[in-house]
Amino acid sequence: MTKHELKPELSHLDDEGHIRMVNVSDKDTTFREAVARGRIRISDEALELIRVGTISKGNPLEVARVAGILAAKRTAELIPLCHQIPLTHIEIDIRLMDDGYEIQASVKTSAQTGVEMEALTAVSATALTIYDMVKAVDRTMVIGEIRLVRKSGGKSGVFEQD
Amino acid sequence: MTKHELKPELSHLDDEGHIRMVNVSDKDTTFREAVARGRIRISDEALELIRVGTISKGNPLEVARVAGILAAKRTAELIPLCHQIPLTHIEIDIRLMDDGYEIQASVKTSAQTGVEMEALTAVSATALTIYDMVKAVDRTMVIGEIRLVRKSGGKSGVFEQD
Amino acid sequence: MTKHELKPELSHLDDEGHIRMVNVSDKDTTFREAVARGRIRISDEALELIRVGTISKGNPLEVARVAGILAAKRTAELIPLCHQIPLTHIEIDIRLMDDGYEIQASVKTSAQTGVEMEALTAVSATALTIYDMVKAVDRTMVIGEIRLVRKSGGKSGVFEQD
Amino acid sequence: MTKHELKPELSHLDDEGHIRMVNVSDKDTTFREAVARGRIRISDEALELIRVGTISKGNPLEVARVAGILAAKRTAELIPLCHQIPLTHIEIDIRLMDDGYEIQASVKTSAQTGVEMEALTAVSATALTIYDMVKAVDRTMVIGEIRLVRKSGGKSGVFEQD
Amino acid sequence: MTKHELKPELSHLDDEGHIRMVNVSDKDTTFREAVARGRIRISDEALELIRVGTISKGNPLEVARVAGILAAKRTAELIPLCHQIPLTHIEIDIRLMDDGYEIQASVKTSAQTGVEMEALTAVSATALTIYDMVKAVDRTMVIGEIRLVRKSGGKSGVFEQD
Amino acid sequence: MTKHELKPELSHLDDEGHIRMVNVSDKDTTFREAVARGRIRISDEALELIRVGTISKGNPLEVARVAGILAAKRTAELIPLCHQIPLTHIEIDIRLMDDGYEIQASVKTSAQTGVEMEALTAVSATALTIYDMVKAVDRTMVIGEIRLVRKSGGKSGVFEQD
Repeated sequence: MTKHELKPELSHLDDEGHIRMVNVSDKDTTFREAVARGRIRISDEALELIRVGTISKGNPLEVARVAGILAAKRTAELIPLCHQIPLTHIEIDIRLMDDGYEIQASVKTSAQTGVEMEALTAVSATALTIYDMVKAVDRTMVIGEIRLVRKSGGKSGVFEQD
Repeated sequence: MTKHELKPELSHLDDEGHIRMVNVSDKDTTFREAVARGRIRISDEALELIRVGTISKGNPLEVARVAGILAAKRTAELIPLCHQIPLTHIEIDIRLMDDGYEIQASVKTSAQTGVEMEALTAVSATALTIYDMVKAVDRTMVIGEIRLVRKSGGKSGVFEQD
Repeated sequence: MTKHELKPELSHLDDEGHIRMVNVSDKDTTFREAVARGRIRISDEALELIRVGTISKGNPLEVARVAGILAAKRTAELIPLCHQIPLTHIEIDIRLMDDGYEIQASVKTSAQTGVEMEALTAVSATALTIYDMVKAVDRTMVIGEIRLVRKSGGKSGVFEQD
Repeated sequence: MTKHELKPELSHLDDEGHIRMVNVSDKDTTFREAVARGRIRISDEALELIRVGTISKGNPLEVARVAGILAAKRTAELIPLCHQIPLTHIEIDIRLMDDGYEIQASVKTSAQTGVEMEALTAVSATALTIYDMVKAVDRTMVIGEIRLVRKSGGKSGVFEQD
Repeated sequence: MTKHELKPELSHLDDEGHIRMVNVSDKDTTFREAVARGRIRISDEALELIRVGTISKGNPLEVARVAGILAAKRTAELIPLCHQIPLTHIEIDIRLMDDGYEIQASVKTSAQTGVEMEALTAVSATALTIYDMVKAVDRTMVIGEIRLVRKSGGKSGVFEQD
Repeated sequence: MTKHELKPELSHLDDEGHIRMVNVSDKDTTFREAVARGRIRISDEALELIRVGTISKGNPLEVARVAGILAAKRTAELIPLCHQIPLTHIEIDIRLMDDGYEIQASVKTSAQTGVEMEALTAVSATALTIYDMVKAVDRTMVIGEIRLVRKSGGKSGVFEQD
């Protein structure tokens, strides 16, 4: 079976298999939204340290939130084939879990292509920043379960998964 | 229990709990290395599409590798409290698994602080770039198990985990 | 008095007091303009050196102007909660004063939110670049009076102050 | 009086008056430190809003601090003739005043040239970020008095001013 | 003959000869496209090494293509007076010649100004990246013939040259 | 003949042909210098416009010089496999020719690897910036002859070519 018989194809490859940035020139500019989630698993001792930091004036999670927002805006610099998309909203929620944090990033725009990568990049940068602030006390942290949970706008309609 | 009784403390917070970039002025410049790993879980159909792309001239994984290398070099821009560290080596290995890819990033430097975040950031950007190129055919991918597997150099000696 | 009784609220904080990028998805795309001004106070000797540089082929102020224009375009990377706004015009005026320079930045766009921060960032980067070029001969320079002087477009109408 | 008779000259201009990045190849690598300060004048109402934000979980000042730290690391991208200097420490102090905040940035490194611009850039970005978060409630804010207050390391010794 | 008698003028200079970013606020948003080309001349031995690399799993040209795409998106950061333009398509073709490679970049957008610089910047970055990967075996490479070959959209209509 | 029999190999490819950033961990930190040159061919009419701009207060070539210096500092962001190298000197010379300009970039550092790419990137960005400022009056410009003319430092000694 040759590549050309496969349906669907990888849209980032042209007919000769070379990479390119997908042509979205003819797609409609519509309101688009994406929500991604991920987790960071942290030891009890480290979680307690963050909790204490939260109660005092500074807050390590706020730094991570800033990093996630900034990273979402720079997605097209980090992910080579992403389009440059000015976002109209970015929100990062960080929820305390028994064994770490769940991070959720919601991004919105009016554009010709979706913003999944922006949401996923925001989650990743937020998690990495928490990791960075906590790594002096816990080197066994694991970042994971980074996935798209909701996407709307564009021809393919609403997508949701847990 | 107050914050000041806790040992160790979060090094990114000063005595008043405000964030700062940790002072490494007095640390020795030594050879340092870090290896991080992560996974991206991909459907069978999408994996087959990448495999076919690999055989033809282009190679989606090579794009992801480039993204990982570039992201490692920009870690200090993405993770707010990271120090700027010129790296002397970056290598990204992508290994085919039954259900996706395992990504490993190795980074080296001579510096006053470690390069864990550079390795972890490289793994994340590599995984996100694979995700981006495959997302048109598989929206259920999950990025995970991002963790430090080896670190050497500096006062704390060699750290290894699986 | 609790936070929720205050009117108006800080728009960059959500109901729980966490930071976010303000949602402008529903705002109209309109023509928007902002003008900001600032000053750099320089010693007589240093001012004379710049004046001489201006007469010869190079011109230190031209470098500062370039820095201001470039910074305006990168505002959303520098100011964490700013939206990414493609500007349609940037102009930096530098006026010689008795005791230094007055810098004025004018920026224009069609967007869903205002461009004050772009104008203020341009003024700041222009002033810092003049400072950098002159600091070898004058370490007592002061940058100040950075403020918005005009803003139009958007629901709040025209704002002007001196 | 011609340019060449003036002593000292602007070091960023070559003999023909063209700009260049000053050659520091032959300077010693020494420990260097710089402290800069600035002010942001804010209305009473806006100050109260920030104070309330501080007491709840999030903290607008923490966002500004992050912006200052990130900007310090990117000084050489923003100020065209600055050298790229990996910093070993960055700390941003924000002190409440009667009419706003005083911002102080301290940066350290071992390098062949000083880090004044890094400290001044950090102060500017911190002030601009506070401005951004408060501008919805106060458009009369003024950023000013940005100046070097201390500098040490290098041939010229310790410099201090108030 | 004074500057003001010349027709046409350099649009990046204002009436006093100071640089500025050209005001495109009143121009129509139209579909725009630009194609640029360039060459890199490489020795026979080095060309053979790239050919071999292409046959094995990796492909140096794919790295260069990624660099070209990323550079196109960052044109406004590199070329000081360029407007920020979100591109809807970027494609880099690299054609083997007897004495090296011919690189062609095609970019598309809907915007108020043209995208020639984005295409030319993409060609340059692609050529520089090939150079970087090959320089260990050939230091005599020459990059050249970088030029616009096609431009359409906007008031000036279609432009084509060879 | 297989890839492994070829001598020398492309150093940016590992044994399996995958790209990587070359390991310079064991190389000596030495003083290194590189000089690159390039040309931009411009029509007589456009050259005259730049000449007039030069005489008035602004100077288009000064903008191009700034762009070249800034690009040199960002080489490692643009050329994926380049190491991050803090430069100690950057100088851009632009010489008027009969049919355009010759651009020369000289860069210096103390580092574990050479700075050819920094010099070549500076030449390219300088040429592109001149192109951008002149393109409204001349679309037939050609950028070319970008090459290394001198390189010293490191194990391979001095290299010179015309």
